[in-house]
Amino acid sequence: MTSPYQHKAHDGINQDVVWHTGSITHQERAALKRQVPVVLWFTGLSGSGKSTIANAVEQKLLALGKHSYLLDGDNIRHGLNKDLGFTQADRIENIRRIGEVASLFVDAGSIVLTAFISPFISDREQVRQRLEPHQFIEVFVDTPLAVCESRDPKGLYKKARAGEIKHFTGIDSDYESPTQPEIHLKTDIDSIEACAEKVVNYLAARGYLGL
Amino acid sequence: MTSPYQHKAHDGINQDVVWHTGSITHQERAALKRQVPVVLWFTGLSGSGKSTIANAVEQKLLALGKHSYLLDGDNIRHGLNKDLGFTQADRIENIRRIGEVASLFVDAGSIVLTAFISPFISDREQVRQRLEPHQFIEVFVDTPLAVCESRDPKGLYKKARAGEIKHFTGIDSDYESPTQPEIHLKTDIDSIEACAEKVVNYLAARGYLGL
Repeated sequence: MTSPYQHKAHDGINQDVVWHTGSITHQERAALKRQVPVVLWFTGLSGSGKSTIANAVEQKLLALGKHSYLLDGDNIRHGLNKDLGFTQADRIENIRRIGEVASLFVDAGSIVLTAFISPFISDREQVRQRLEPHQFIEVFVDTPLAVCESRDPKGLYKKARAGEIKHFTGIDSDYESPTQPEIHLKTDIDSIEACAEKVVNYLAARGYLGL
Repeated sequence: MTSPYQHKAHDGINQDVVWHTGSITHQERAALKRQVPVVLWFTGLSGSGKSTIANAVEQKLLALGKHSYLLDGDNIRHGLNKDLGFTQADRIENIRRIGEVASLFVDAGSIVLTAFISPFISDREQVRQRLEPHQFIEVFVDTPLAVCESRDPKGLYKKARAGEIKHFTGIDSDYESPTQPEIHLKTDIDSIEACAEKVVNYLAARGYLGL
């Protein structure tokens, strides 16, 4: 058994970096959970329905006895990434860290869902490249800006239009739509329930949900 | 149901931060895994046996059908924390992020083991404070410096003594021993097997391993 990592003990802080025989493998963790670990990466405008659909997917997975975890603003922005601000560099670092944590959860055997606007193709591609091809499923929550703005559950679009919030995605900052998302959801046509079912059916049809 | 977090949408980047009803609870995730989630925080000198014992504990937990995950240099230093260097500030940030990721795994229902020297009491205490009292178990791998140095599996002590590595814990940087660790292991007296068994017995006796 070899490590997937290079081990260069070039400094004291890397003194722990060595491969230990007898480690539990990724396959053993996944087998215990009877599923194929994967990242469901939800992307879309604010108010598009990412978190709502992701929560509905998780409910369905739990009912099937599957092990999932949702990373979103609630548990990331106030914890791991609370040191990050709003510069371009910090936005990139925000997505990079989320991708790394998602990768750890995949290694642990989980089906991990992420619900962040993640407006830039390059950032999403970087996460995709970090994983095996079958471990990254891009879920485009494709809700028209006008619909998101009419929902405006937090009044953020109103503030953005008034100039009180700068660099708001869809208003004065770009959203780059996925060109070939694995799953394409349209919440202005389908219900939350139907969207969530589409995601779970995608997983089931491709063997992610195991036995 | 209320969120444990404050939600202040004070800027565009926080536009996703809102509570969604219908989220799966921490309790539901733990129930699916039939265990009580917890962090086993291994601390000790380089070569003390942290990772080796943690791996042995994981093997035992897997045999019991329990869901665990090990955070160590292998999967953290080359991924999430690869942007961090060796300054005092970066060392603190290193441990902070590991604590935050461990907290996410606990929220997901896992028994998470961490194997880092983590030499400073203040850093370890910060992680402890981040969690509920019963969710943090400090495991002191108390191996005398002379024993660690005689093992020196990676030749790092030799390099540190030669001055080739600076700020090496135990040589020219302090290791602050835990004053009241929940579990105290002495690898110069007990075998790896005995140490691992002590940890698992601790968990079992306190109900962490559930049904």
